[in-house]
Formats: sequence, C-alpha cells, structure tokens
Amino acid sequence: MKIGFIGLGAMGQGIANNLLKAGHELTVWNRSAPAADELVRGGARRVALAAEVCGSDASTRADAVFVMLADDRALQSVMDAGLLAALQAPTVLVNLATISVAYARTLAAAVIAQGAAYVAAPVFGRPDMAAAAQLNLVVSGADDAVTRVRLALDAIGKKVWPAGTAPERANVIKIAGNFMLASAIESMAEASAFTRAHGIGAADFLAIMTQTLFAAPAYVGYGKLIAEQRYQPAGFKMALGLKDVELALQAAGQARVPMPFAAAVRDALLDALAHGGADKDWSALAEVASRRAGLDE
Amino acid sequence: MKIGFIGLGAMGQGIANNLLKAGHELTVWNRSAPAADELVRGGARRVALAAEVCGSDASTRADAVFVMLADDRALQSVMDAGLLAALQAPTVLVNLATISVAYARTLAAAVIAQGAAYVAAPVFGRPDMAAAAQLNLVVSGADDAVTRVRLALDAIGKKVWPAGTAPERANVIKIAGNFMLASAIESMAEASAFTRAHGIGAADFLAIMTQTLFAAPAYVGYGKLIAEQRYQPAGFKMALGLKDVELALQAAGQARVPMPFAAAVRDALLDALAHGGADKDWSALAEVASRRAGLDE
Amino acid sequence: MKIGFIGLGAMGQGIANNLLKAGHELTVWNRSAPAADELVRGGARRVALAAEVCGSDASTRADAVFVMLADDRALQSVMDAGLLAALQAPTVLVNLATISVAYARTLAAAVIAQGAAYVAAPVFGRPDMAAAAQLNLVVSGADDAVTRVRLALDAIGKKVWPAGTAPERANVIKIAGNFMLASAIESMAEASAFTRAHGIGAADFLAIMTQTLFAAPAYVGYGKLIAEQRYQPAGFKMALGLKDVELALQAAGQARVPMPFAAAVRDALLDALAHGGADKDWSALAEVASRRAGLDE
Amino acid sequence: MKIGFIGLGAMGQGIANNLLKAGHELTVWNRSAPAADELVRGGARRVALAAEVCGSDASTRADAVFVMLADDRALQSVMDAGLLAALQAPTVLVNLATISVAYARTLAAAVIAQGAAYVAAPVFGRPDMAAAAQLNLVVSGADDAVTRVRLALDAIGKKVWPAGTAPERANVIKIAGNFMLASAIESMAEASAFTRAHGIGAADFLAIMTQTLFAAPAYVGYGKLIAEQRYQPAGFKMALGLKDVELALQAAGQARVPMPFAAAVRDALLDALAHGGADKDWSALAEVASRRAGLDE
Repeated sequence: MKIGFIGLGAMGQGIANNLLKAGHELTVWNRSAPAADELVRGGARRVALAAEVCGSDASTRADAVFVMLADDRALQSVMDAGLLAALQAPTVLVNLATISVAYARTLAAAVIAQGAAYVAAPVFGRPDMAAAAQLNLVVSGADDAVTRVRLALDAIGKKVWPAGTAPERANVIKIAGNFMLASAIESMAEASAFTRAHGIGAADFLAIMTQTLFAAPAYVGYGKLIAEQRYQPAGFKMALGLKDVELALQAAGQARVPMPFAAAVRDALLDALAHGGADKDWSALAEVASRRAGLDE
Repeated sequence: MKIGFIGLGAMGQGIANNLLKAGHELTVWNRSAPAADELVRGGARRVALAAEVCGSDASTRADAVFVMLADDRALQSVMDAGLLAALQAPTVLVNLATISVAYARTLAAAVIAQGAAYVAAPVFGRPDMAAAAQLNLVVSGADDAVTRVRLALDAIGKKVWPAGTAPERANVIKIAGNFMLASAIESMAEASAFTRAHGIGAADFLAIMTQTLFAAPAYVGYGKLIAEQRYQPAGFKMALGLKDVELALQAAGQARVPMPFAAAVRDALLDALAHGGADKDWSALAEVASRRAGLDE
Repeated sequence: MKIGFIGLGAMGQGIANNLLKAGHELTVWNRSAPAADELVRGGARRVALAAEVCGSDASTRADAVFVMLADDRALQSVMDAGLLAALQAPTVLVNLATISVAYARTLAAAVIAQGAAYVAAPVFGRPDMAAAAQLNLVVSGADDAVTRVRLALDAIGKKVWPAGTAPERANVIKIAGNFMLASAIESMAEASAFTRAHGIGAADFLAIMTQTLFAAPAYVGYGKLIAEQRYQPAGFKMALGLKDVELALQAAGQARVPMPFAAAVRDALLDALAHGGADKDWSALAEVASRRAGLDE
Repeated sequence: MKIGFIGLGAMGQGIANNLLKAGHELTVWNRSAPAADELVRGGARRVALAAEVCGSDASTRADAVFVMLADDRALQSVMDAGLLAALQAPTVLVNLATISVAYARTLAAAVIAQGAAYVAAPVFGRPDMAAAAQLNLVVSGADDAVTRVRLALDAIGKKVWPAGTAPERANVIKIAGNFMLASAIESMAEASAFTRAHGIGAADFLAIMTQTLFAAPAYVGYGKLIAEQRYQPAGFKMALGLKDVELALQAAGQARVPMPFAAAVRDALLDALAHGGADKDWSALAEVASRRAGLDE
C-alpha cells in the first residue's frame, strides 16, 4: 500500500518503521524533519509539507494516511494547514491519536465530506511496544474503510479490536481505557503510601499484588516503576496523562456521567505538575501520594 | 497435625475441608452448628464450645487453631468467650480473617502473652478458590511459628507469600490489597458508565480491557460480573466490602495517609447500601456509577 | 453617559433599567428583540445589530458598552459578529459576564488593540438584587477606564470592589467566589442529608445554622430554598452552576491547583443534570445528596 | 443551683466561670488540678475525684453536673471511673462535649437507668466566646430536664437552640454543624490557593467575600486567620477538627449517607497532620491547599 505518515514522535517512529518493514511504500512528514532521518535511510520518502503525504494525483494518491499526533490542537493545526483539503477518495485517514470524542466526531465528518474515508485506531501501548508491533488497536469506522487498511493495521499491532462503525467509538474506548490505567496507577500509589506508612516497602507489597490478583500488564509495568521509583525517562509523561484524564472528564461532562475517580486522579496529576513532575512518567503519582502522607521528609 | 478450626462460613468450609483432605486431625466449631455437618461426615470432630478446639491436655493439645471469622467484633467475641484463655504453648493461632491493623497488634500480643504463638494468614480469593485450595495467603509472624504451620498453609492455598515477622504486617497487606480490588471495581464501574453513556455497552468495552492491559484475575472476574450485571448470589458482599474499605481508611487515618480513592469508594459503597444493595456482590458498584449518570431510568 | 447595553436576560434587564433610571442614554440590543420592549417604553433606544450600540460617529459614540451574556461562547459570537470591530476610543467595554480567565485575557487584549478600553465587572447577586441595584461588583481594569464608568457602576450596584488593573483579575475573583457559593450549597446539601437520615429535618437544622455561624446571604438564601425544597423557578440554574464550576476547574488546571471540593461539586451537578435537574436552581444539589443516601424512596 | 463541673480546658474554664459569676454553687474537677486554681479563688470548691461533684447525700446532691471533655474516650473514662455510678435523681447530667451519635445514645440510656436525667448541650463557639458567654447551645433531652437546667444554660450562652427530646439529636446537629465549618474552611482554602496562583492574595480575595456573600462569623473569623496566615495559637486544633469530621463520617456511614465533602476534608486534615500541623488551628487547611498547588516553594 501507499501510506502517508504524519507524526514521528516516540510512538510514531516505531509504528512507521513497522509499516516500512511490512513492505508498504511510506511517505513521511514530521514537524521537525530530523525525526524522519532513520525512516528515510530505511526507504521512506520525506516531504516538506504534511499535505504532500496524500500524493498529488491518481498515480501517487495514498491508500491511507496515518496520523499520530499529541492532541486535538496538534492534529487540528496539521489539518487546517492543508492536510484536510488534500484528502480525497480513495484515501483512508487512519487516526492513531488519542483525541477528544467531540473532535473525533467533527473531524470524521469533515474527512468524509472531502470524499475520503476515516478510521479511528487509537492504540494501547508504550513506545517499546510500538517498536515491537505489540500494540493493541481499537478500531472504529465504516466497514469497507477498515477492511482497506486492515493489512497495515495488522503490521503495527498485536491485535485489532473492532469497535463499531461510528468513528468516535474507538476514541470513547481509548479514553475510558486510559482512565482505567490512570486509576490503576493511583490505586497502587495510595496503597503503597499506606503500606509504607505501616512499615512495608512498596516493592514488597507490589510484588505480591502484581503476581497474584493484579498480574496484568498495566499493573506489572507501572508497579515495577513505582517499586523502583524510576520515573525518568518517562514512558508516558504526566502532562500527557493529565491531557487524557481531562479528555475523560470532558466527555463525561457532556454525557452527564459523574466520575469521582477521574476527578481524584486529575487533582493528583495537577499536584505532580505543581511539584515539577511534568517530565516524569505518570506512575510518579506514587510520589504525590507519598508526599501527601509526609513519607519522604 | 491436630488442628482446631473456628468459623465455617462460605470461605471457612472450603478451607477446613482442604485441611481434612490433607490428612490433618480436625476439630471444628461454628456459631451455628449445622455448618459443620459435612465436615463431621468427612471425619472432623465437632465441639460445643469454641475453646474446646484447643484440646484439653497435652495429649489432645492442638498444634494449630485456625480462625476464619467476619470481622474484629466476631473474632473478639469468640476470643473473650474462652478461646484466648484456652490457648497455650505449643499451639499456633492462625488467623485467616481480615481484621484491623490495630486489633491484629493487640490480639497477637495477647496470644503470645498466653504462651501460644500467632500467625496472621489473611487470604486473597473467593469461596470457589477456597474450595479448590487456590487461595493466596499472605503470612506474617515469628519464623518458627510460621514453619510449624507451613504444611497446613500449603494444603489450603496455591501460594504462601511471606510478609515478615511483625504479626500485623500481613493484615496491612491484605487491607491494602482489598483496597486495590475495590478501586479496580470502581474504575470499571465508572469507565463502563462512561462508555454506556456514549453508546458502548459495558460488555463490549470490558471484553477489550480484560483481554489486554487488564488481563488479571481481579479484572477478569469482576469485569465479567459487571458485563453480565450478575450481582447475586454475591461472591463478596457489599457490606463486607464496606468493612474492608473502612479498615483501610481507619489504618490510613492512624498513619496520616490521605487516600482519596478509598474515600470515593466508601461513598459509592454507602450509596449502594442506601439503595438496597447489602446482599449484592460488591461489583454492583457498577450500578451506583450508572445510577448517578441516570443511565437506567 | 451614552451607554450601549447588550444582553437582556433576567440579570441584564434589571441592570439596564437601573442605568436608565439613573439618567443615562441607553441603546440596547438583545438576541431576541422583545426582551427590550419594556426598556424601550422607558426611553431606551433599540438597535438591530449588536455593533450599533457603539454609535456610528463621534457625536453618537458610546461612552461605555455594557455586556451581560451567558458565557464565553455567547460573548465571543457577539464580538465576532461585529461588536469588536465597532469598538473604538473612547468607548469602555464593561464586561459584566462571568467568563473564563483565559478568554478574559484574550478579549481585553483585543478590545485594547482596537483603541477602546476594557473593564471587567462581574457581579455577585441574583435577578432580584440586580433589579434593586443591590449587586456587588468586582471591578478590574486600567484606572482611568474604571474612573470613566464609575458613575454607571454605582448606579447598578450596592458596592464596587476594586480588584486591580489586570483585566482578568475580577474574573478570577468572581470564579473563586462562585466556587465558594457552590461549596456552601453542597455543604448544606450533605449536612442536611446527614441530619435527615438521623431524624432531623433540613429546615430545623438549617434554621439554627443560618441564624448563627452561617448568618450570611449565601447561606440564608440558599438554605431557605433547601429547607423549603423550592427549586423552581430557578434563581440560578444548575446548568449555569456547572458552567461556573467548570470555569474554576479549567483555570485551576491551567495554574496547577488541585481543588477536590470543586471536583466533588462538579460530580454532584452532573448527577443533578443526569436526573432532569437542568432547569432547577442549583440549590437542588440537596436533592442529589438525599438521593444518594436513599432518603426519598 | 448546685452545679458540678468536669473538664476545665480552654472552653470549660470560661463556661465554669460564667456559671460561678451567675451565682451558682460550683464544685469542680479536672484531670490536672491546677486548671481549677482560678475558679477556686473565685469561690468554686475543688474535689479530688470526678464522682464527688455529684455530692454525697440529699443535702449536697448536685442539681446538675456539666461535663466538657474532649471526646468519647475521655468522657467514657471519667464515667467508668465512678461518675456514672454516682449520678442519681434529681441530678441532670449536662453534656457539653461533642461526642459520637452512637455514644450519645448509649450514655443517655445509662444515665437515665441510674435515675438521673440527661441533657445534651453541645456548643458552637471558640474559647473567647465561651469566656464571654456568647456560645450557641444546641440542646436536646427530656423537656423537664431541660427546664431544670435552663437558667444555667442561659448563663453560659448567647442563645439556646432547642433540638427535641431524643438525647442524641443535639449531637447530630453539632456534628453536622462542625462539618459545615470544616467545609467553609476548606472552600476558603481551595479558593485562596486558586486566586493566589492567579496573582491575587488570599487577604484581598477573602476581604471581598467575607464582607459580602459570606459575611458570617464562620467565614469572617477563619477567613481572617487564613488571610493573616496566623494558625498559632490554635483556637481549634487540627487534631480536634479531624476528630469531629470523623464523627460525621462515622455517623454518616451508620446511616448510609455518602458525604464527598467530608471525605475530602478528612484527607486534607490528614495531610496537615502528616506535615506537622497537629497543633495548628484547623484553618491551616489553607496551607494544605497551597502546598498541593506548589505555591510556597
């Protein structure tokens, strides 16, 4: 397939590379060009403008354009700068990013109005999993559009989870899933502060939990970071965590869903950011819980 | 070993039966006698008073007395009614119950003052896991005491997790672990209300989560109950859940540990109880989150 | 003074009328024209476009333009529809509305860039107090701009509270004050649910509180509504309350300030809206607290 | 009247002194005797055992025994040490202390079983108000018992608020009222952290609030302490504040009433205590809100 790819951050690079390795023709663009160097060495073509990943005529028209950007704002700015206008049939826009439910609706409608197709495919996984093609992809969009990009999706993930045809459905699931992740971290953070205050180290406590009732990737991975107090370099930064929890709160507000856990996690994330935690992994919520309990003074 | 066993509720019956099957000589007592009928048919001896499970002289002295009671109050009432006075060397009191950190300290001291030994061995697992000897046991107490009951512990659990010598340590871990369970349920409850309000059923959403990031017993088990809205018969009742979360809040208060998640879960449990949920499984927290969002009206 | 006035809702009508009664020349505009009928009968001039309240030349140029609109969106739409472009020296835009801190900054800069002046003057008070010129006005803006509109401000309020020269400062105070109001209501709501569950009616309890420690307008007024369960017609609707609490949470997030009370109030407001409370006074938070406690079933 | 008085802390001394000044015959006891010195100089009689304040025979029998102790435990210990046994008709036990709803019920029954009468009269006010006889007293108990001590109550308070005949009713109201006080402080704490983070000092902000919507003793008094950051000497210590909020949470739990504000305040109080705040006034909750926002670093 001819694939355009936009957004070569830590996640995007691994994903784009897997598309390349799977034999797809890749045209890439990133805000800062050097991020594409390695991909170019691997055979990708670099373009100067984001819109150019779509191709210029029928013979170069991209089958799919993948975007992996940080948030609504970043995506909207690329769309407004020409990408949206350049999309047309039969290109499928595959949006891997975690964006708001509201913007997912708006964007899908705009893309479809252009004659192109839209597939939401937000991913669960951290950069090392992206590089290893071990992501879980939650996918929503019109059936034929999903079918047309299915091979490419299979190349970048461990598994594709179909989520229906309404384009924003995958985003709802992704946002809810990230909320559950944040909650898992916060619950380990509070529980560890509790055991520490009673003389039991976080590592000892979490070792038991993550080998028994909580022997799942979310707990094993973040539990290890908390046990080792190893919050840098961040796999997923506090600031991004806050963004995602705010996406949950915003969409919850629109649907009138009280979410006390989401509210409590948001406050803990703000507390972390107010104490210089912006560049730490969001598992550093454990520092917030411990600081509130006066444990490290 | 000669083993006394007190407390034949849903958990206790399975555990006691496994001790019997492992070849131990079992003497049992329960507040309501019929609960012991099946064990007696299996070879256990029934006594009329709890204290009698300790034996009456050197030749009948129990090597260990296991207790599996509902809470501090139930345990204290049995202790005060003669059990404490009847304990003496070399009997090891093995306390399987989830009790408060404060009472664990007091009780262990009292037992040791009697010349007997004390081992805390609270269990993670539900009645079916108790029956199948698949419990996880967190064990704390003096090393030689733990050693003396080790064979019996192995007979009732899948794994023994050593937690140190101070007797209350296992209780701290058990209470923290149950808080994490409650938090896992509440996070699924809120996330499901969120997805439902956006048109995605709890079953569809939780299927993805519990096969990926949250593929752990805690989430798989309770996720299934939430997906199927199957809250009765209860594996673990709301009222017991509230008791355990209150144990966490109480011990957190004594150690000055703020726990916003524990506070939020307590409020949700109270909400459930205020709406007739006392006999439901605590995974019915999902009903609370949905009701607050006006989803089932 | 020549004064333009935009926004004739329940608050705006009373305020505009007081400007008229104080002898100012009033030009009014409202999205739905009939709201201006009474003011026109009283001597105000009605214009067809919002921008026309500014006047068309030096001889008709408004000294001040007052705006009293519901939220950022309403205000921005009027600004974009020509009002901003029509503003020029020496007109002072007096913004009475409760808008976001972020938009207050942006808007003030845009108005000043037009050559006009900007004064923020959000008000504390309900429609009856607006009609009686009993509002409290928190005012920020350049000193000379405030001085030029001071007489008009005195005509509509009981007291002007100076809040400094940076234009958004009054909005910060207004938002913080509304958060305190919401918290006062929620605390009465929870306390009343508590006393009711223990057999003491809300009216009996609140009568004592609001005559002693809490003998202040916020508590007396809302306490009376709660005691009488009289939530309609609304003085201040749930939906507006939610808007204001979300303004607080948003500005708190930007400044990294955890606000657990604001989060809890938001959840209660969402709960109210999810149960048909959109048109009730926000003191109906008492219904939420009572419902959660199962009191009215 | 012949009055016994037990508990000469900061509150008790002022109250006892007002009883003395009103011409009552006062017999006093305090755990540490020197606290009674000034009262003795003023004409009170000091006894060696708490029970002796009841008098020894019909001619010396106290008409009323007032107790003003810190909590359930302190009161229970004095009761068990002989006071309960010494109470008999026609003495009225007047309990000024803030105790739990559960213990209020138990204690009243025990006192009545002795043939004596029981009146609950918890007070709102701080030590300076106690000294000035400006307390608000919430009073519950059998009508004739209340009548018999009415003169004495009038001597120590500004106003008596009748709360019905069931003895625990006054305690329910007192606990709910203290929860509202704690909530008022927390709301000022969060609002001030919010305005400070946006460049507006707590003093400037609170001056406006406490002269307008919140011009009530609770806000004026605690607002001043927050504005001046003057938390010592404490009028009401953090630790006592925590006790009272926990009384609310406990009685709320028994009646199945979710109280998210009470839970949030408890966490903030724990945070304060974990950071050395035990001896500060509970208005130092403002320090917690500011610390969480990173404001004083």
